[in-house]
Amino acid sequence: MTTTWVDGAAGSLFDVDNLPYGVFSRAGDQPRVGVRIGDFVLDLSPVAAAEMLDAHHVFQEGSLNSLMAEGRQVRESIRRWVIGLLTEEAERDLVEPHLVPLADVTLHLPIEVADYVDFYASLDHATNVGRMFRPDGEPLLPNWKHLPVGYHGRAGTVVGSGTAVTRPCGQRKAPTDEMPSFGPSTRLDIEAELGFVVGTGTSLGDRVAHDDFADHVFGVVGLNDWSARDIQAWEYVPLGPFLGKSFATSISHWVTPLEALDAAWVDLPGQDPAPLPYLLPSDPEQQPRGLDIDVEVLLNGELVSTPPYRTMYWSPAQMLAHLSVNGASVRTGDLFASGTISGPEPEQRGSFLELSWGGTEPFAGDHTFLEDGDEVVLRYTAPGAGGGRISLGEVSGRILPSA
Amino acid sequence: MTTTWVDGAAGSLFDVDNLPYGVFSRAGDQPRVGVRIGDFVLDLSPVAAAEMLDAHHVFQEGSLNSLMAEGRQVRESIRRWVIGLLTEEAERDLVEPHLVPLADVTLHLPIEVADYVDFYASLDHATNVGRMFRPDGEPLLPNWKHLPVGYHGRAGTVVGSGTAVTRPCGQRKAPTDEMPSFGPSTRLDIEAELGFVVGTGTSLGDRVAHDDFADHVFGVVGLNDWSARDIQAWEYVPLGPFLGKSFATSISHWVTPLEALDAAWVDLPGQDPAPLPYLLPSDPEQQPRGLDIDVEVLLNGELVSTPPYRTMYWSPAQMLAHLSVNGASVRTGDLFASGTISGPEPEQRGSFLELSWGGTEPFAGDHTFLEDGDEVVLRYTAPGAGGGRISLGEVSGRILPSA
Repeated sequence: MTTTWVDGAAGSLFDVDNLPYGVFSRAGDQPRVGVRIGDFVLDLSPVAAAEMLDAHHVFQEGSLNSLMAEGRQVRESIRRWVIGLLTEEAERDLVEPHLVPLADVTLHLPIEVADYVDFYASLDHATNVGRMFRPDGEPLLPNWKHLPVGYHGRAGTVVGSGTAVTRPCGQRKAPTDEMPSFGPSTRLDIEAELGFVVGTGTSLGDRVAHDDFADHVFGVVGLNDWSARDIQAWEYVPLGPFLGKSFATSISHWVTPLEALDAAWVDLPGQDPAPLPYLLPSDPEQQPRGLDIDVEVLLNGELVSTPPYRTMYWSPAQMLAHLSVNGASVRTGDLFASGTISGPEPEQRGSFLELSWGGTEPFAGDHTFLEDGDEVVLRYTAPGAGGGRISLGEVSGRILPSA
Repeated sequence: MTTTWVDGAAGSLFDVDNLPYGVFSRAGDQPRVGVRIGDFVLDLSPVAAAEMLDAHHVFQEGSLNSLMAEGRQVRESIRRWVIGLLTEEAERDLVEPHLVPLADVTLHLPIEVADYVDFYASLDHATNVGRMFRPDGEPLLPNWKHLPVGYHGRAGTVVGSGTAVTRPCGQRKAPTDEMPSFGPSTRLDIEAELGFVVGTGTSLGDRVAHDDFADHVFGVVGLNDWSARDIQAWEYVPLGPFLGKSFATSISHWVTPLEALDAAWVDLPGQDPAPLPYLLPSDPEQQPRGLDIDVEVLLNGELVSTPPYRTMYWSPAQMLAHLSVNGASVRTGDLFASGTISGPEPEQRGSFLELSWGGTEPFAGDHTFLEDGDEVVLRYTAPGAGGGRISLGEVSGRILPSA
């Protein structure tokens, strides 16, 4: 790997094998597109204008959507250009004035979310939840190993990392209650997930073939699918989660482009029974591939779980192929998430529901569900092309009392 | 009611007590906002510019969203202005050149859909479905009479009336099949619904109080929630409908503003048990109100059902209050639909699933589910302020064979 001339970036989690995109502003400025290197944001717009880059206008926008809509070839060519800017000494005089210290910027929600879909792709998570909710039945429902189960969430309440989350109110009814009551959720939870952002859309009626994943997906975000378990448990039959999830979903400020994850692809743990052909690579010699991304869940600064994304049952390409197999179009800005990432070990569970086993086994001191004032930070790292690791940024949020 | 000078409009279903908004174009023109009167579209943009209306720019847009975002007061004042234009002889010279015959225009999807939510608000529909799917249990699940059950649908596949619908493919597994298979849906269905479009949004954390419905909702559309029952039946546990619905949802070209429905409000049939206070008017003397809208379902030109909206259990204001009670923000362009409208009589059922009782009782000749080439038209009328009826337009779609 070529070495960057940017102070402190070489060997860091934000070296030139990473280069995630985000939207930033400085006091008084309009938000625009930048790329992270070390502890700086490179302000791409003036550099692209100076170098007369065709696509320079996409960096002046307040979201990544125009950049993402340019498609895979442009995404790859912009990445090569940025790597050149940050590694060639000859570029330093032009570029260095446009490196803004992170401490001097405000980071914004990086994308305008079109449709938001949430999957349920972890075998360990689905099994844990099934055991808790249906103790007398099979933990997995009959469809689970045949298709990546998913549902639509609320796009308008996707917020950027750092946004405070107000404890939601709603209807809940414990099995022992005679009637439902209204009030603040008492089982407020997180779901540590990975999100995939669509760059290139399709037309109504088209399918995204399994093999075309990288032609449509721009990159990856960390995602916390905040969940009010008591509201969800009462409302969710028969049409699925609604108000138990729709109050907030947090994503990282940085969108890591797929190319930064080239070194992170790994075999899936294995799928039995074999999925239907539309969920498999067209080449029978190929296998669906997962991502070796490590997640850390921190509660008030304490590491409470380390969910491993490589244990997920369904692959990212399988989720997108399934989502569109009925001809549903996808759009620039579509976000689809993995569902809770839980590994096989108790300390790898990606929700408080599982970490506290339905609230019956306190963890991290006496925690079961989220208390007012709690802060949760999700951190994501992956192997980088340079032999070290890259960070996908973090997703943080603090719980405010219900209003 | 004042009489309009527009040829043929007085006494029609599109008289001056109606005046729905839509987006239209003429050959070579950009789509822009118009209002329907009789068999004409009034091109609002040049008239508003000539009269130096403050908000005239909102009529130059390719969707109603900017108009809708202006809020209730502007909506009401624009309506009064349009009524004046179309009833005062003095305006005729200015206005008449901008009346475009419907036959000369193309109508477009009228709104940019932000989030789409679908409810399940008909007692008769929920009871019918429950009887079919859970013959040995209570037809209604325990939560049904306590909250308007709903879920998020796919906003990006909401299409305008007249858009052909390609039969979706997907996974399905009949109870007698050992394994799921992939192929075209064999149980393709309609759901005759009413949709409500949000004009004025809220901030994250706010609730829309029951009484504030008309401050946030701009108007009403007809809606057909196309459904692939075989795909839905296999996928929907535990997270709800996904690909069985996401391939297409059709709405009418016309958005009928709330003011046109002033004469259509009626008492609900009755709610027992009483809903929790957040689902009720703040004044205990007031009752939640429904809408007396008649729906007609035509299959290949033949009237096959007449679902009455006045029989719905949950009211429009209750749906919006529920949707936002957890602090979920709403946005201009949000669309929330009622769910299938079914009345108590067999000939008032709003889906083929119910009309054919799960495919076991053919209707309209030998129909059970939709065949390739079938055309479905939904028509909506309501009492108008003028003493006659107004039309909310229609929602049509023809089934194309799977691709």
